[in-house]
Amino acid sequence: MELNKKGLLIVISGPSGAGKGTICKEILKKNDLWISVSATTRSPRDGEVEGENYYFLTKDEFIKKINEDDFLEYAEVYGNYYGTPKSKVIEKLNDGKDVILEIDIQGALKVKENYAEGLFIFILPPSMEELKNRIIKRGSETQESLMTRFKSAYKEINYVSKYNYAVVNDDLNTAVEKIKSIITAEKCSVERIKNNIFSKERLIHEQLND
Amino acid sequence: MELNKKGLLIVISGPSGAGKGTICKEILKKNDLWISVSATTRSPRDGEVEGENYYFLTKDEFIKKINEDDFLEYAEVYGNYYGTPKSKVIEKLNDGKDVILEIDIQGALKVKENYAEGLFIFILPPSMEELKNRIIKRGSETQESLMTRFKSAYKEINYVSKYNYAVVNDDLNTAVEKIKSIITAEKCSVERIKNNIFSKERLIHEQLND
Repeated sequence: MELNKKGLLIVISGPSGAGKGTICKEILKKNDLWISVSATTRSPRDGEVEGENYYFLTKDEFIKKINEDDFLEYAEVYGNYYGTPKSKVIEKLNDGKDVILEIDIQGALKVKENYAEGLFIFILPPSMEELKNRIIKRGSETQESLMTRFKSAYKEINYVSKYNYAVVNDDLNTAVEKIKSIITAEKCSVERIKNNIFSKERLIHEQLND
Repeated sequence: MELNKKGLLIVISGPSGAGKGTICKEILKKNDLWISVSATTRSPRDGEVEGENYYFLTKDEFIKKINEDDFLEYAEVYGNYYGTPKSKVIEKLNDGKDVILEIDIQGALKVKENYAEGLFIFILPPSMEELKNRIIKRGSETQESLMTRFKSAYKEINYVSKYNYAVVNDDLNTAVEKIKSIITAEKCSVERIKNNIFSKERLIHEQLND
């Protein structure tokens, strides 16, 4: 029996290169979740599909959406805008659907300001050496932007203290299983389900008085 | 990679007849946990084994242990003493071993006073009707003690708000899986592992400066 009725907003975040994208793909394979697709003004990388990886917008289009208050968060990162379209996420949550949001740290902290009841999970790279290798392997970066991203990632690890959970991504399957457990556990959290327990208790009380 | 070094004290609690005993047995089958054995002054039921189900003590022996401060908690329930021997639990936790403690609500709340960092899980019966049936099935109660236990169970459900998690025991396997998830999740909780993350971060910092 589920005591939780509203969907969970599951925010998967962490430094660039920690593997949050791969983790999200794996979670989506086996779970009935809705993934939030971000909007961005950066150029598509090879193989990226509009509306699947991102909604690719011009800067003008993006700013129009900001003015219409249509982002749960938005931020400028490395000269490009990234944002989470708001209305769809809220709609899915109200329908009782869990929503997963893969997002950089800046974005996650802004989402937390706007939606504190989200489930904030920080993906830690197994080591900075490994993080560097993963960023290099991706091969889409110049040497300079690679170093910028690497140094930024190190600084960002401090932000883990703002999150609810931290998962080290040293093994993909283990990390994915941990996140699934976190989602299951969160739905049993008394803090989160208190209201539903007590409506259940009222139900029990009615049965007693029958 | 585990970021948690100290064992977790997992307190499985809830009203009498909610099925916490069966749940604990299932969890122990597949998990490397140490179960805390309680001491009691009540008489053994058929099939109960000394040192396995309980340490059966006389009232005098029990009171001696109280005076030696050798209980994590103790309480008088239905005229009998029940208590959790302290030193062994603490020793196992310090060795990094998770300890499971099946205990009534009075006991759990006292453990919480003495060991707030425990993981307090409340087992909810699927309905009070079902709870009544389970108590009757156990067959070891007189009609009077049955009604006492049943009424007490209803009052006790209010205490769920003092716990970290609530799990409805409408299906044994589901309930057990939820508890396993809660244990896994708790080991990823930033609140719990903060110190270890930051010692990990120091490690990373050292690697960076190599």
